[in-house]
Amino acid sequence: MSASDEKAALDISGTQKAVRWYPPKYDIRVEAVPIPQIIDPDDAIVKVKLAGLCGSDLHIYRGHEDVDTDLTCGHELIGEVVALGPSFHHDATGRPELYSTLRVGDKVVSPFTVSCGECHFCRIGFTCRCIHSCLFGIPHLPGGQAQYVRIPKAGGTLFNLSSAQSSSGTGDFSKVSDSSLLLLADILPTGVFAAMQALQHPKIAPILTGKPYPYGGFVPGGALGHAQASTALQDNDRVLTIGVVGLGPVGVCATVSLLDILARLGASQGLQYEVIAVDPIESRRTKMEAVYKAIDVSGKGSGRFAVASIDEGKKLAAEWTDGAGCNAVLEVVGNNSALTLAYDIVRPFGIISSVGVHQEPPLPFTGRDVYNKNVSFDFGRCPVRAMFPIALEILLKRQDVFGGIGEEASLIDRIVSFDEAPQVYEDFDKGRCGKILFDPWR
Amino acid sequence: MSASDEKAALDISGTQKAVRWYPPKYDIRVEAVPIPQIIDPDDAIVKVKLAGLCGSDLHIYRGHEDVDTDLTCGHELIGEVVALGPSFHHDATGRPELYSTLRVGDKVVSPFTVSCGECHFCRIGFTCRCIHSCLFGIPHLPGGQAQYVRIPKAGGTLFNLSSAQSSSGTGDFSKVSDSSLLLLADILPTGVFAAMQALQHPKIAPILTGKPYPYGGFVPGGALGHAQASTALQDNDRVLTIGVVGLGPVGVCATVSLLDILARLGASQGLQYEVIAVDPIESRRTKMEAVYKAIDVSGKGSGRFAVASIDEGKKLAAEWTDGAGCNAVLEVVGNNSALTLAYDIVRPFGIISSVGVHQEPPLPFTGRDVYNKNVSFDFGRCPVRAMFPIALEILLKRQDVFGGIGEEASLIDRIVSFDEAPQVYEDFDKGRCGKILFDPWR
Repeated sequence: MSASDEKAALDISGTQKAVRWYPPKYDIRVEAVPIPQIIDPDDAIVKVKLAGLCGSDLHIYRGHEDVDTDLTCGHELIGEVVALGPSFHHDATGRPELYSTLRVGDKVVSPFTVSCGECHFCRIGFTCRCIHSCLFGIPHLPGGQAQYVRIPKAGGTLFNLSSAQSSSGTGDFSKVSDSSLLLLADILPTGVFAAMQALQHPKIAPILTGKPYPYGGFVPGGALGHAQASTALQDNDRVLTIGVVGLGPVGVCATVSLLDILARLGASQGLQYEVIAVDPIESRRTKMEAVYKAIDVSGKGSGRFAVASIDEGKKLAAEWTDGAGCNAVLEVVGNNSALTLAYDIVRPFGIISSVGVHQEPPLPFTGRDVYNKNVSFDFGRCPVRAMFPIALEILLKRQDVFGGIGEEASLIDRIVSFDEAPQVYEDFDKGRCGKILFDPWR
Repeated sequence: MSASDEKAALDISGTQKAVRWYPPKYDIRVEAVPIPQIIDPDDAIVKVKLAGLCGSDLHIYRGHEDVDTDLTCGHELIGEVVALGPSFHHDATGRPELYSTLRVGDKVVSPFTVSCGECHFCRIGFTCRCIHSCLFGIPHLPGGQAQYVRIPKAGGTLFNLSSAQSSSGTGDFSKVSDSSLLLLADILPTGVFAAMQALQHPKIAPILTGKPYPYGGFVPGGALGHAQASTALQDNDRVLTIGVVGLGPVGVCATVSLLDILARLGASQGLQYEVIAVDPIESRRTKMEAVYKAIDVSGKGSGRFAVASIDEGKKLAAEWTDGAGCNAVLEVVGNNSALTLAYDIVRPFGIISSVGVHQEPPLPFTGRDVYNKNVSFDFGRCPVRAMFPIALEILLKRQDVFGGIGEEASLIDRIVSFDEAPQVYEDFDKGRCGKILFDPWR
């Protein structure tokens, strides 16, 4: 029986429950809407097992996105394939592997944006800027807070957890919970991305390699010629101080990923590191403290770590670095106060890795500000599909943080039914809860 | 006889000629001022052989820097050491090498800013953000457009061309003219820096290495774990398209450096490249065309190259890349129209390497602009002292461009006397001439 035959065997007509948003703002309703159907040969239909509520859902919720029609919310989902378009068959050669291998019944997680896997941007790993890119949870692509979701370009977009299990080499994850695996849809890869943008930057390379700029940085093929550096780093130059601004769920993911990668680098490169995690909200700081305590000591390496309010963060960034400031700051909020704080605590030749979803306001810097500090910025959306393999490794390694629900050190607070959606949207918007997942079948 | 004995033997008292600026703007005078003296043990006094007029001198000239006292202009100089402070002696151990080795009579070039060579920023290669950093040509540090200049922290700041000759391994440069070597003070290293910031960026690494993001990028020590990329680059993904915005003297240096490095990368990495060099001023485009023709073919590799007006540049950036835009843009102007053009022609996940000296206006981008395009920016001043060795290699290799004076393909237009300073400042400000040098003794 071919995949398309299997599809025909399933009855997925009729209506389903979904979380819906109505303009202009703050209007969340739970409604019955039609179950989506295959409309393009590359589509898959996924039966949603869990859907996440994400900080960036709040942009729509608050009416900041200039959307004037109702929509089905959400862009984080894990589920099971229940139907596949005719592009999925055993000899779909020359196309992304999933077109040949994905089966009805496979467990999948979807990134929060569609990516074809076939254009230049996908091949190069910049999957969130795929030429077919589309965000789930906008008017023309219904989101994941529903019982069923249509996934366009599914052979490029989806990550097959059933086959990853057998081929990833990352160890057994059959016992890892769906709630944990759901974090792969957005927030954990986004956290990893925030950390990687900083750590791969050529201005950080001298600290990692011990060779001064620009010789520590990477350029293959003798592009630096035979020239030699005229200075040398000392051991005490090899301390990496990194700030994290914003300790919502993505900020916690960024911090844990950063600590994990720094511990590996510290062990292999003889590097010392310091992380200062900043948030103005006390409950978020408490969560971050608990998460840090839960991480096993072997993963902490030889670094030091502090959770801080804004004022404390500024003070520590100066004290720990003799006034120089942080080598890099991960900005995980998406507004101008966060960007300004990042600028204030970063040192000259520092990096601001900004994964916050920024809106209409102009950037809060003059040309002179950025020239005089030699600041580097990396802005934008995480290419989740490209970050999956690394994020999965970190997810499996850090089940102490990402595995539980509702414990002191858990990233996820609760799993609720759709009926609670209006309330949890409000609570989340007001900072009264952490990460919430929906079970569409509860 | 020790260096400090030699110093005593020279008579450098009295007055000298210097190019002076008076507030509020456009007021250049040639005046007699006292010859500078050693005032700190780390000082050197340099007898200036040639001094450059640089685009960033125009910020002061035009009154954009809020300076309200007169000053001695200029930050580019080559000359001969005529006096050394007491820190310079044969056993200045534990300090930068020049404190032990620099001698009266040595030929030196100075970066446009002071750098001690001893602080963390200097050791790591970020010399322009030395904790003792100071720009030549401001009220409290008289500039290079004089017959003599005091160089603070001279053992860290100066580059000794006499000893570099014997130890650089870059070949004989005893016949290289002083006018050519002067380009090391600022504009050639700044051009190399603009190119290196782009080429070392992790978002360019996939094109150089053939491995998708983030696996193509550099992070040592297994920080990426065992995870594998889920896509692969094709040969036609490995085309690097780079724009240069601004073809003044620094822009020409940036373009020549870029072409030189790309040719090496192309040869060693099987890479194709394209460079689009943009300027609205016709005379600058004509100069760039002549410079490109003068570069020998072996250095061009397998790339393609175009000089373009703004509209042509936008058109080519789209046509050559199937609408994607440039992988990176070097912004070598220092105003918001240049930054905006760079943004317009860069692709998603592209890099803007900005070495222009930006002023008070806010950056011309909203948070949404930079998020939606996943733009990376590197802003700021070139760490000239750290870039010297690479810049020297390129200088020697590209004497066809950097060696001559006043020829069609020469970067340098003319060498004039200080008496012509008021006129050439005005001409340079109005775009009526290219790079001008002063001979203080003419």
